[in-house]
Order: sequence, then C-alpha cells, then structure tokens
Amino acid sequence: MLTTNKKQKSWKITATKTIDYDVIQITSVFNPKNELLLTTAGNKSSKRFVIIDEALYEMHIDAIINYFKTHNITCQFLPIPAQEQNKNIDIFSLICKELDSYGIKRRSEPIIVVGGGVLLDIVGFVASCYRRGISCIRVPTTLMGYIDAALGIKTGINFNGYKNRIGSFSASVLNILDRSFFKTLPKRHVVNGVGEIIKLAVIKDAELFKLLENDIVKCINDKFITTGNEILKMAIQDMLEELAPNLFEENLERLVDFGHTFSATLEMHDISNLLHGEAVAIDICLSSSLSHIKGILRMDELNKIIKLINDSFLPTFHEKITPKLMWESIKEKKLHRDGFQRLPLPVVIGKATFVNDIKYDEVCMAIDLLKNLADKLDSAKKNH
Amino acid sequence: MLTTNKKQKSWKITATKTIDYDVIQITSVFNPKNELLLTTAGNKSSKRFVIIDEALYEMHIDAIINYFKTHNITCQFLPIPAQEQNKNIDIFSLICKELDSYGIKRRSEPIIVVGGGVLLDIVGFVASCYRRGISCIRVPTTLMGYIDAALGIKTGINFNGYKNRIGSFSASVLNILDRSFFKTLPKRHVVNGVGEIIKLAVIKDAELFKLLENDIVKCINDKFITTGNEILKMAIQDMLEELAPNLFEENLERLVDFGHTFSATLEMHDISNLLHGEAVAIDICLSSSLSHIKGILRMDELNKIIKLINDSFLPTFHEKITPKLMWESIKEKKLHRDGFQRLPLPVVIGKATFVNDIKYDEVCMAIDLLKNLADKLDSAKKNH
Repeated sequence: MLTTNKKQKSWKITATKTIDYDVIQITSVFNPKNELLLTTAGNKSSKRFVIIDEALYEMHIDAIINYFKTHNITCQFLPIPAQEQNKNIDIFSLICKELDSYGIKRRSEPIIVVGGGVLLDIVGFVASCYRRGISCIRVPTTLMGYIDAALGIKTGINFNGYKNRIGSFSASVLNILDRSFFKTLPKRHVVNGVGEIIKLAVIKDAELFKLLENDIVKCINDKFITTGNEILKMAIQDMLEELAPNLFEENLERLVDFGHTFSATLEMHDISNLLHGEAVAIDICLSSSLSHIKGILRMDELNKIIKLINDSFLPTFHEKITPKLMWESIKEKKLHRDGFQRLPLPVVIGKATFVNDIKYDEVCMAIDLLKNLADKLDSAKKNH
Repeated sequence: MLTTNKKQKSWKITATKTIDYDVIQITSVFNPKNELLLTTAGNKSSKRFVIIDEALYEMHIDAIINYFKTHNITCQFLPIPAQEQNKNIDIFSLICKELDSYGIKRRSEPIIVVGGGVLLDIVGFVASCYRRGISCIRVPTTLMGYIDAALGIKTGINFNGYKNRIGSFSASVLNILDRSFFKTLPKRHVVNGVGEIIKLAVIKDAELFKLLENDIVKCINDKFITTGNEILKMAIQDMLEELAPNLFEENLERLVDFGHTFSATLEMHDISNLLHGEAVAIDICLSSSLSHIKGILRMDELNKIIKLINDSFLPTFHEKITPKLMWESIKEKKLHRDGFQRLPLPVVIGKATFVNDIKYDEVCMAIDLLKNLADKLDSAKKNH
C-alpha cells in the first residue's frame, strides 16, 4: 500500500509477503508414480536443472533421468562437491553460470537440489538471488538435511572465514523427505544429524531425550531405516514449532540457536575435518557446562547430556577450544544477535532459558569443567 | 503458522512478512538538525558504516563526520568507485569484507549508502544478504537514484555479462531524497535520470508528458534545483503507484518494464560508455517503434516520444543495435517473465498494453524505422 502525505513530501510503502512451503515425507521420490517432483509454482513445464552432490551422481542419475523422461521433461545435471570447504562464493558463482548457460523460466521451472545440508544451503541461496529469486525444490539425502536444513528458510554460504556470513531467508516451495537415501549414507553422516536432534531434545523435549537415551545406538546402527520413526517425527515437529512462528528471526531469542554459539567458529577453524552436527554436539556440551557454571543446570543433568552425546558417537570436546576463541565466538554472536548475548542455556533437560551476562571467567571455568568430563569419558572408552 | 497433517507425514508452513519503508524528501540531509539519518530499526546506537561514491567522498566527508559527531556516533567510511562496470561480485565481496572488519550490530546499526543508482543497488544487495539481512538507509545523490533506485526494493549486481542477474527484493528502511546533491551533479547524470521520467510519462501519465515537453530543457539546464518540482513529484508518485502493489513482482506484467526489454543488453554490450537512463531512452524509442510496426501506436505519437527523448539530450539509437542482438534480448526477457514476452508497448502517450507475439521480422522493421527517424534527427541537429 502507498500512503502519500498531503504535501507530497513523503511516502510510506507497506506490503505483506506470503510465505508458503511444504515439507512432505515420502518414499522413492524418483519413482515416476510419485508426482511430487513435478510440483511447480504454476503450470507443469518442460525443463529442469538438477544440482546434485557429486557423491550421489552415479547412484541416482539413471533414476532421475527416467523419472523426468516418463513425464516428458528434459533435465540437465550439475554435480557439485558439497563439503563445508566448498560452501563459498566460487561454487555459488559456478552454479549461477551453469544456470545462465542452461536457461530456465523464472517461476515455473524450479531448480531441484539433491544432497545434504551444505548443498541445500548453497542452492537455496542461489535460488533466492538468481534473477532475484527462482523456484526451488529441495531433496535432502542426509539426516542433517532431513531434520534441519530442509525444514526452514535459511540459506547461505561461508565468506571471509565466517560461517553463513552471506545468505537469505528464502523458502523453497517444496521439501521432500525420503529416508531411502539413508541406506547408502556413511555412518558418520547419520551421527552428524543426531547432533541437531539432541539439541532439540535438550532445549524443549524431555520425552524425545528419553527416547534417544534408549534407542539412539540402535537407530544409528540401523541408519534410521526401519527404526527411529518416532524420534524423527518428534524432531521434525519440534524444529518446525520453533521455526514457523519466527521464520525471519524477528525475535532474536531463538531456542534453536542452542549449540550454535561456539560451533560456527570451531567449524571454520577445522573446516576440512569437523561436520556441522559434530560442532553442534561440542557446543551443546560447552553451553551445558556453562549453564552448570552459572548455577542453572544441575551436574547430574549435565552428565546425562554429555553421556548422550558420547553414546551417539559424537565428539564432546575439541582441541581448538580455548577461552580466547570461545570468547571471540560470543562477541561475534553478540553482533549477530543485535547487541546482546541471548545465549540459550538448558535449565533442565527439556527446558531452556536465555542469558546475557556470560563473563570471560565463566567461559574459562566451563572449558575446564568440560575438558575434565570429556577426559573421563575418553579414559573410560580406553579401558573398555 | 504450522499445520501438521494427522499422520505426521507432511507439514505446511505459512507466514506473512511485513514490508514497511519510507521515502522522505528533505534538504540538507547532513545538517545535524535533521535527525532522519539517526533512524534505526530499534534504538539509537553508536556506530555507523557509510558507503559513499568515491567521487563524492572529498565533498561530503567533513559534513558527515560532523553530523555523527554531533550525535555522539562514530562512523567509518568506505569510498567505492560506483560505475556500472564495477557493479559486480568483486565490489560486493569487498564491501562485505570491510563490514566484517568494522563490525556492526545486525539490526540497530544500519549501514548508510550515499551515491547514485548503481551504488544503491550494490549496497542494497549487500544489506539484504550480509548476515542474511542488515538494516540500511539510502541517500541517493543522482536524479536516477532519486526518482528510481531509491523508491523500490530491488537490489542487484551484474553477473556473467547479464545486468542485475544476482539480486534480491529487499527494502531499505529509509530512503532520503535530498535535491541539494544535484548542484554538483554533471549534466549527463541529470539527463540520465530524465530517461526514467520519460518512461513513466509515456506509459501512464500524459499530463507529465506535456509538462516534460514544455519544461525539460529548462529543468535539465537548471539541474532540477529550483525548477521541475511538479515533474519530480509526479514522477515519484507515478513510480510508487506502480511499484507498491507489486513489490515482489508477483504480477510479471509490469508497466515499469517499459524501456527495460532491450536496454539491459545494450548496457552490458557498451558497459563503459552507456548509462542506464541512456539505454532506457534508446529502448523507449525502439519499443515505441515496435508498437507502431504492430499497428498499436500512431506515427505522430511515436514522433512525439522520440522528439522528447532527443530534446532531453538523450540518445535515440545505438550502433550496437542489430536484429539478432535485440531478438536475444526478447528471448532473455521471456525467461525472466516466465515464458511470455509480456512486452509493455505504448498505445497512446499515457497508456500502455502488453504484447506476447512480437516476431523477429517485426523487430527488424522496428529497427529500420527507428534508424531512419534517428538519422533525420541527427541531420537536423547538424543543420542547426
């Protein structure tokens, strides 16, 4: 709406934009009988551009070609090496250039991304700013993609040593969750996704935490193929309940930021080794230790959290953790959270609060405490 | 809003985002008594990052420093060479890196951009994706910035030889229109903005067209400093009336796309010479010729349009115009307009329509016609 003041000396423009997207669980997404992948913003159309993790290319190309051929749609593939160290402006540019060469309609020929969380983030960002926004369908193939990246509207690439420094809030019209990809997923990438599930359990879902305590080892060994239905449903539901009312982060106190205060710095300092969920797991341990140091979280609860992380084959500590680096992380997050720490800390398992008064000394103490607990777990492992 | 289906097999997420921004005409924006530049999304704060056209840096730095010093705010400057050929990913990256070094709060320390349309577009894009969006205040210093770039929410950079290929729809919270910058504006940059004003007149405002016929030479010679009040008000009002109901281009039939079908290609093919408004002027002439060839626009109206462009010291033709290149432009715009040409063409002065059936032959004929008319104007000039 346009409001012009009487003397035509000023104008106010207001509008609302509707965001509307689907998350759908199916099996066999590339079975031609599933028509989900044909979804477009408008009419069916005749061209598709498919960006796929290069590690999955050989495995799925025939099925995808057959899928689109059955539906009279031509497609082109762009295999991309989708590790954290490639989540940068060069890969972004490469994808945009390939899009230029292929040529797609802005609205009715959605690009399709098939891959893990890293690739979903990159392509989501391409989709949000190529021609100021084109349609996109996301097909996560990792647990991290499935219970995290494909659920929200955050896109991004790393830049200048900072994680996701450049990005957007931009919804992909459709996100298709198909667990059959997990069959060929390396165990480490199953474990990686578990980091984000534990996060949700600690901050808002004690019931989910109990389920994890009982079943997580079984689920990981089975790669969630026939197990863990309830865990995945609860994790998705929990995550969406947190994201949906605050899609654009108008409220900067976000429970889902738990595990995301120190992790970004660790990831960027060990980019070729550490996966996102692993960094989140370490951050969960450190933040929970900090919560104990602040007198918020009881020791037995802290131990339970660290034990679950450890039982889930996730790391609880990282050699690059120093008070100085962790303090830098807090300062960086303070800018990102507009001047306040807004650090989510668990109160008990299943409930969290926000604090703004963490001091350097407390970070030092939390690190010492965690180092101690992690060392004990390590020697217990060695004695087994 | 989150809607979970009964079997928890699918989720629908819907939300609305509110867009709300101001366009305000004032004089002496850097006079400390004007508090507009202190506007923030939230509280007043203590740091500002000012990106300024390097050509304006020496002229205004003392006033800006004094302005912020008076209000107890520290600021840092980043002078940028803001020509079309620098509107690229390198300048984008450079600005982001400088922002990393300086450090600003995400919401309450808006970056400020002082410059012409090119710089407003670049910095608008930085603001939309740095940390997935930071606050921004825009201060246009050219006529093009004043009546075009600062009014809408489109941001962007050129990429891979395509104009504004990468960008976003992202509102700057405040856009401050201050005509005193025109005093030091080169005449060519005044004329440049007139291209967009003529566009608006042709497609929707016969009254504005008449005013331009009468006054444009005087206004250009005076740089709109004491003249052309009515013209500027009408142009801003016309533009905002077109933009406000369709901020995100959900409707791809946009009257304001008049003059923007062939111009982008011309600009990119002559990037170091042609200004945006000059390319738009040539496109207006070519599109209007096409409208005559299609039997839509009468010859006398076409002549009036071309005469006004010529009288305004704007070009009416360009040596790089060939049928092949112009046909490429139409094909490119067809992708951008999702599969249809949706070409705005004037019916009479002040009224336009959209066509989807332009043929290659018609483009050839329109070029020949325009070449002829432009040649006549040229020889008339020489005879004077």
